[in-house]
Amino acid sequence: MTHWADDEESLLAPVHWTRPHASTLPVTGAWRPGDPLGQRQFMQMAVDRPFVLEGGGQLRNITIAFETWGTLDADAGNAILVCHALTGDAHAAGPAGPGHPTPGWWDDLIGPGKVLDTERHFVVCANVLGGCQGSSGPASPRGDQPGHYGPNFPVVSVRDMVRTQAKLADALGIARWLAVVGGSMGGMQVLEWGVMYPGRSRALVSIATCLAATAQQIAWWSTGRRTIALDPNWRNGHYYDAPPGEGPHAGLALARMLSQITFRSDDVFTDRFGREVVEPLSGRFSMWQRFQVERYLEYQGDKLARRFDANSYLLLTKAMDLHDVARGRGGLAPALRRLAAPLLSVGVTSDVLYPQYQQREMVDGVSAVGGDATFHQIDSPHGHDAFLIEHVQMGEALGTFLTRIEKSTA
Amino acid sequence: MTHWADDEESLLAPVHWTRPHASTLPVTGAWRPGDPLGQRQFMQMAVDRPFVLEGGGQLRNITIAFETWGTLDADAGNAILVCHALTGDAHAAGPAGPGHPTPGWWDDLIGPGKVLDTERHFVVCANVLGGCQGSSGPASPRGDQPGHYGPNFPVVSVRDMVRTQAKLADALGIARWLAVVGGSMGGMQVLEWGVMYPGRSRALVSIATCLAATAQQIAWWSTGRRTIALDPNWRNGHYYDAPPGEGPHAGLALARMLSQITFRSDDVFTDRFGREVVEPLSGRFSMWQRFQVERYLEYQGDKLARRFDANSYLLLTKAMDLHDVARGRGGLAPALRRLAAPLLSVGVTSDVLYPQYQQREMVDGVSAVGGDATFHQIDSPHGHDAFLIEHVQMGEALGTFLTRIEKSTA
Repeated sequence: MTHWADDEESLLAPVHWTRPHASTLPVTGAWRPGDPLGQRQFMQMAVDRPFVLEGGGQLRNITIAFETWGTLDADAGNAILVCHALTGDAHAAGPAGPGHPTPGWWDDLIGPGKVLDTERHFVVCANVLGGCQGSSGPASPRGDQPGHYGPNFPVVSVRDMVRTQAKLADALGIARWLAVVGGSMGGMQVLEWGVMYPGRSRALVSIATCLAATAQQIAWWSTGRRTIALDPNWRNGHYYDAPPGEGPHAGLALARMLSQITFRSDDVFTDRFGREVVEPLSGRFSMWQRFQVERYLEYQGDKLARRFDANSYLLLTKAMDLHDVARGRGGLAPALRRLAAPLLSVGVTSDVLYPQYQQREMVDGVSAVGGDATFHQIDSPHGHDAFLIEHVQMGEALGTFLTRIEKSTA
Repeated sequence: MTHWADDEESLLAPVHWTRPHASTLPVTGAWRPGDPLGQRQFMQMAVDRPFVLEGGGQLRNITIAFETWGTLDADAGNAILVCHALTGDAHAAGPAGPGHPTPGWWDDLIGPGKVLDTERHFVVCANVLGGCQGSSGPASPRGDQPGHYGPNFPVVSVRDMVRTQAKLADALGIARWLAVVGGSMGGMQVLEWGVMYPGRSRALVSIATCLAATAQQIAWWSTGRRTIALDPNWRNGHYYDAPPGEGPHAGLALARMLSQITFRSDDVFTDRFGREVVEPLSGRFSMWQRFQVERYLEYQGDKLARRFDANSYLLLTKAMDLHDVARGRGGLAPALRRLAAPLLSVGVTSDVLYPQYQQREMVDGVSAVGGDATFHQIDSPHGHDAFLIEHVQMGEALGTFLTRIEKSTA
């Protein structure tokens, strides 16, 4: 009962899609002031004093874009924070539409009667600091001087993202989340929430993520960054004023094509594409003849280039490489000893990018220091992206865990 | 008892190596007429009439560079053909020296008293058609008109490579090889030798290879090609007359960095590099600060750019994507039914690029049509590259199989 696509469009794409001419692509896929707001809400922070980043940079007048679903209870006890992955954004639920190029990335899990039940829960998702869908990032106007931050936006860590989310929680009147939930880079945020603010969540759900980026993960993301830097249209990060079609979409798209391979699996690629061709081999062989898998990857690359910003991609992949819950905390055990809430760690059988052993390691690590941690396995051929695809299994795991938390008195 | 490096240099590299300025790199790492010959011998073919390629192109005046070790018996019964992988070349054994930037890639297996015993065997290794170490390829002068073939070199298939090797065998007086042996792209050649010339080898040893490239393998190699094409210095393949330092080394090096991740393994990267840094994180975080694994990859990329040609990389990876022993033969079973020699298929436990199931599949496929095929597993953490590293295990597998063949009367 394999289903292939994360959405219907990408299911059909490799068959019908034709690569557009680059000139139709914007220099950045970032949301920019003046674009349709969609469901975005905004919060300003660091207005009176600078926000000092873990890596030493400073920012003033930070905007965090976020969305909410449902109604916050009087005691603010029903709030759930959902943290997005690398190329996700605050639009975790709801349809595509003006301001939202894609439907919510977890639309099957968030809504009335769904596992994150917006008739009972108040769900919040914020675009991360350094992102490109409304929160302050490299594509944002600087404010203090003309132009955009571009490559001068300071390096952001997962801890910085979480600190902005804590300020958002303060502003929303949420002292303690019922749960903090996220996959991949979102799962890194979940772990940092647990360590940085142990009293501020009743439950943690981290999916397909790691305690610290491994050398192989750094290898993948760092080569993706070099792909963007190889694109002459990246212009050392100063491309925002380039003519339409002359942004670094080729580099960004290629970085995405590469990562898309690591997001899926050998089995699924074989099932879906095998050796099917786009341009037939029956005539003369040519260097740029494509197999279907190549068009699929081109489509995925193009899709991302339309809705993402190359400098944000650099920044957020770097944040993932820097992710290490032990850093500056005297080691892993002291860091994990800070966790106060039960942790559900979810892994995917076929995930080659964030392999299951990493999610088991975090359960072992938390258990070893006396914490409450459970491993749950998603059985799926879809690789890392299964957390965006296997809604039934994800929903069951989340639902069971949330029910346990809601029944507890902690 | 893990040992890391394929050679001592790369073991030390990530610690001591500093990225050179691009201007020190040649526009192509190809061997070119006038360069030191080293141990190369040359054979000319297609002098009187064109060599028609599987994909429809034609070539005249083809040069094949090769090396030999040992002495051919009077009955020419002791000849072993060794087929090289993507970035290998004819220098399978012997030290580095003028004309040979690296030591032989199988130097531990080929030589006096070694498993391919040059006191008893006559070992031959030819640079593939389309390669860049002396055989005709994109970096070669055209001959019929000024300049180099560049992107006009026709697409080459593994079958074309094997046909040039058969002509070389004819010229050397070798009617039948004692064995044809190779790993990765070399293993593809071994399989095609078995199907195309079933009477011309007594034994086949294919290592870490496949019957047909999978969608995932196509995905990896095709994105590598796009990395080269993204480099403005690739100039659509016309870079041979560019000034030194202005060749497509950045694109070629990045393609190598990416493939190097797939050649090795998560475990070995973790053991060797973990989260060690080159530029320390203690100061301000910066976007281009590197972890050790990044420097290791940069070193591997740089090393390849010095001894390889970007257009050859395009051509040979395309040949690997096109590899499909069933193509044009009425299916896999009819193709495999042609094999007449025993096949030893070797796989590596940790190979994620050419996973073991593919080497088992070919044994099952050959067995299913009544052929003689055996699977042998190399137990190694080193991933795909284990066939270049695990000399002891490779030697034992090869030695046992060759002894069996030499004792047989077939």
